[in-house]
Amino acid sequence: MNRCETFRALHHRPGAPLVLPNAWDHASAAALAEAGSAAIGTTSLGVASAAGKRDATGTAREETLRLGTSLARLPVPVTVDIEGGFGMDPAGVAELAADLLRAGVAGVNIEDGRPGGTLAPVAYQQELIGAVKEAAPALFVNARTDTYWLPGHADGTARRLSAYQEAGADGLFVPGLQDESVIAALTAGYETPLNILYAPGRLTVARLAGLGVARVSTGSLLFRAAVQHAVDVAGAVARSGGVDGAGVPAYAVADGWADSYGK
Amino acid sequence: MNRCETFRALHHRPGAPLVLPNAWDHASAAALAEAGSAAIGTTSLGVASAAGKRDATGTAREETLRLGTSLARLPVPVTVDIEGGFGMDPAGVAELAADLLRAGVAGVNIEDGRPGGTLAPVAYQQELIGAVKEAAPALFVNARTDTYWLPGHADGTARRLSAYQEAGADGLFVPGLQDESVIAALTAGYETPLNILYAPGRLTVARLAGLGVARVSTGSLLFRAAVQHAVDVAGAVARSGGVDGAGVPAYAVADGWADSYGK
Repeated sequence: MNRCETFRALHHRPGAPLVLPNAWDHASAAALAEAGSAAIGTTSLGVASAAGKRDATGTAREETLRLGTSLARLPVPVTVDIEGGFGMDPAGVAELAADLLRAGVAGVNIEDGRPGGTLAPVAYQQELIGAVKEAAPALFVNARTDTYWLPGHADGTARRLSAYQEAGADGLFVPGLQDESVIAALTAGYETPLNILYAPGRLTVARLAGLGVARVSTGSLLFRAAVQHAVDVAGAVARSGGVDGAGVPAYAVADGWADSYGK
Repeated sequence: MNRCETFRALHHRPGAPLVLPNAWDHASAAALAEAGSAAIGTTSLGVASAAGKRDATGTAREETLRLGTSLARLPVPVTVDIEGGFGMDPAGVAELAADLLRAGVAGVNIEDGRPGGTLAPVAYQQELIGAVKEAAPALFVNARTDTYWLPGHADGTARRLSAYQEAGADGLFVPGLQDESVIAALTAGYETPLNILYAPGRLTVARLAGLGVARVSTGSLLFRAAVQHAVDVAGAVARSGGVDGAGVPAYAVADGWADSYGK
């Protein structure tokens, strides 16, 4: 199997969802892959914020393509969050998707949320998904709807998921959804694998697996937790508090992430 | 005071060393500044590794300049680790330093370690420091010697520190040095502020302050700890273990790092 096929197969293991950690740079992706993740995603918040840009504003296209190209060196499949397509028209988004596929990326995430807290028209989002699938048929296209992310839109979820499935989406993603009965209805109602965003203290991976979810992403959680951890360690150093270096990778290990551990 | 003067003054507070956290991207730097750090440094390991490159190989010049330019938006002074000058000749290194100063950076770190575990000749390193100071007089130049980093070179420390001070260095940095009597001798023997690398479980900031140290850096520690923390959280999610989201910054907070909190 090539990496697109491998990645696709990870979404079709009933009871064993793909747990997808989302990285924000090459080092975090390599470390997560080294720790045993079967595939790696990216977080648009992390990628934009690392570059000093705001998320979902369509400004981090260059950083996203550069990171995707770098991550294609990893020995596991990689899927790239391309926000809503970075404000490009369907032809522009299709070209980006084709570039990512050529670089060795296995999948993309494309969302219908737009700057300012609005949703793209269903027909336009369908066109976008269709254009990406036509330009890069092997790419696993995860179609995200922000109906649960943005207030007042949950009623439109089924209509959008059906439209995106019809347009050729390989996966359906509803971040913010944690209602067990809704999740169970969606996994029963759609052949296309369902992706749910993990939220601390809410549904566990085991519970989501039981509901038929095919993929559980961590979104921006790891990025936010990692940066906060750096702040916490810096605080402990400054206060002459105890800093436990035991679990921290040595310099040589961290330097080795650039080589994607031997590849 | 402009930011170069502010940064310089932070090295001249007897008993209250500058505790300098080293960031690897805009987000980590903004979060550290927001948490109250008086100044921010960068870690060449983190910057290179985040970009999928090896540290101290002279390959991350572009990423370093881009990050330094971005960090100059922060409301606190920033100092940038330029490794050994990225393999450039003194004129090239001086040009990079002038570019960083123009971008709003307050200082640079320049090391005498070279790829392959060797040290640059003293006279060459003096020339490098001199060229940087001539091209960017206001820039705080922290001259690092790797005599304690590389085995078998500790005897040459004083000779190198004297040479770098003579060449115009504004700070002297000896990573790997943790011997209290040597540190006390160096702070007594040199007018130029001494910088020591913090190491978990070794000398605390309070102890280093008592020895007369002017600056304590965290080097690549925060970067390595942060990436490992992401791996740990991802592991807990996958195992359906408990993930404490309480201390993790919200999405909007993390997204705000791009704006350097209101600046």
